[in-house]
Amino acid sequence: MADKNVNIVIDTIGGDNGPEVMVRGAVKGLEENKNVTLYLTGHKNELEKLLAGYEYDKNRIKIVDASEEITCHDAPVEAVKTKKDSSLVKGLNLVKEGTCDAFISSGSSGAVLAGGQLIVGRAKGVKRTPLAPLIPTSKSPSLLIDCGANVDARPEVLVQFAKMGSIYMQNVVGVKNPTVAIVNIGTEEEKGNALVKETFPLLKQCKDINFIGSIESREIPFGKADVILTEAFVGNVILKLYEGLSKMILTEMKGAMMSSFKSKIGALMIKKQLKKTLSTFSASNKGGAPLLGLKGLVVKIHGNSKEGEVISAIRQCSEFVKNDVSGKIIRGLTAEKAEGNPEE
Amino acid sequence: MADKNVNIVIDTIGGDNGPEVMVRGAVKGLEENKNVTLYLTGHKNELEKLLAGYEYDKNRIKIVDASEEITCHDAPVEAVKTKKDSSLVKGLNLVKEGTCDAFISSGSSGAVLAGGQLIVGRAKGVKRTPLAPLIPTSKSPSLLIDCGANVDARPEVLVQFAKMGSIYMQNVVGVKNPTVAIVNIGTEEEKGNALVKETFPLLKQCKDINFIGSIESREIPFGKADVILTEAFVGNVILKLYEGLSKMILTEMKGAMMSSFKSKIGALMIKKQLKKTLSTFSASNKGGAPLLGLKGLVVKIHGNSKEGEVISAIRQCSEFVKNDVSGKIIRGLTAEKAEGNPEE
Repeated sequence: MADKNVNIVIDTIGGDNGPEVMVRGAVKGLEENKNVTLYLTGHKNELEKLLAGYEYDKNRIKIVDASEEITCHDAPVEAVKTKKDSSLVKGLNLVKEGTCDAFISSGSSGAVLAGGQLIVGRAKGVKRTPLAPLIPTSKSPSLLIDCGANVDARPEVLVQFAKMGSIYMQNVVGVKNPTVAIVNIGTEEEKGNALVKETFPLLKQCKDINFIGSIESREIPFGKADVILTEAFVGNVILKLYEGLSKMILTEMKGAMMSSFKSKIGALMIKKQLKKTLSTFSASNKGGAPLLGLKGLVVKIHGNSKEGEVISAIRQCSEFVKNDVSGKIIRGLTAEKAEGNPEE
Repeated sequence: MADKNVNIVIDTIGGDNGPEVMVRGAVKGLEENKNVTLYLTGHKNELEKLLAGYEYDKNRIKIVDASEEITCHDAPVEAVKTKKDSSLVKGLNLVKEGTCDAFISSGSSGAVLAGGQLIVGRAKGVKRTPLAPLIPTSKSPSLLIDCGANVDARPEVLVQFAKMGSIYMQNVVGVKNPTVAIVNIGTEEEKGNALVKETFPLLKQCKDINFIGSIESREIPFGKADVILTEAFVGNVILKLYEGLSKMILTEMKGAMMSSFKSKIGALMIKKQLKKTLSTFSASNKGGAPLLGLKGLVVKIHGNSKEGEVISAIRQCSEFVKNDVSGKIIRGLTAEKAEGNPEE
């Protein structure tokens, strides 16, 4: 059976490593995913020059010229509204008009989030569109939902996030019957802030998710749940603390290893094993962070992404579209209304 | 000038390592702090037997018999209300009645928090009593305030926490003009949830703290502020993620080092340096987590505390009382009213 063709647009501007890595990732991702056609938005001349260095099927990569750039110094909403000829806005418009199924960017998070909502738009029945990165654990990666900019969500919004996250983990990451836990400050049902206390019983009633109760943040790194559900402010704090604390500990340990001649020799002897372990901390082989619940897929990859992240994101978009995750999300959220659930 | 005498009560029950470590820490803490008198609550016979193994000034350690125990399986509020003869309740009553200035426990966090509020009680003008542990950073430890059980705090409560935290860092930890930052999901002033947006301008107006703006959680491990201000739910998530993620990374790295003969030899060669680095991650030499804003000082030390933590906590209590931190907090919070600040 031939796979459905998937059209993906890649914003080549805004990442820390320049269009080179985006183009290299695109060409390699194309080889791996035979059903994919890629659109690259960016400076046409530059992209043509970069592509000239590769052998690839010319019919499967299309360049879309963009003269403007959005950086992380721009105010996101304003930039999206005014920089009509930016690689980001042009890319998102390709999704909006239906030419492309998915959009990948390593540019400004704020602009990707704002653009996803303003240009691509929410799918029917979706209250809010969560940003849901995979975070590394000592087991397999967990989906942290929501880490976006939509803070102070209401309980019924979190219930939708739980459903979207479950559908994503099952259909894109391939986890069967994914477990869902809500971030809390204790494991007892009566613990929590007002939001958690109101959300907890709604999650318990929810038949289409595998809800396992509360999770304390100390358990998150040990992979105690596949979907880690939380409001965006807390999710953002968790995501960035994960990043900062890992970096601090590894920097300090590296410093310790380099502090004497003997320890330097020792460090050389454990280098191979450490590298292997540290690579499991990276969730990059699972793709970027999807912004879920839009009319198309928008994926934010890290600002310092290399070609590997681009390739993974292409695979992720392909799986997302092939498995009709958007359709499943919309049907999943509509089912709740049909059941007479009071959430809408 | 003779130092003011300080009376401290130590709850010897409830910690993971039994009364032995509490007694050993007490005797050693006594030697170090000449102005201190200690009260030990717990099983009298057992304490007498343990103390018999040490040389110490008999006038400076007093045993207070307690027949009941509060464990982390007890519902905190109920346990505090019903187990009148527990080491925890008897200890807190010594503070309430003025016999002791401070209370130290390695028992149930919930019971310590509940007991502090119900038995010792809030000082005049204090809206809420935050739990404020020191967390390790790549510079000096930062005070994370609030990590307690009082979630969903209002803006004016956070302003009080900022003042209390500053006074504590200055007078107990010895940081001059401590910097205060509020945990946020971006560094721009307009970022944040409703609580942060409302609190931010109040902190800016506040003359008696050194407010430096927002801090993203990824900066916390690098010691970017002395006082890390946040509402208790988020604070609790940060504290426990700190604990869990450090543990996970160190466990994984240890596993990597032990995975081959060569890496085991390498690990031996870096052991000394690593140990030194890891010990700086421990904040135990700065004492336990104070519950601030009460009529006396209540300090929660970690459940698995050893004698070192007990000794540090005794020093911490001594500094707190000698420098009249309680008085400074009350005057600091009252000053705001005198200025016509609308917070009360």
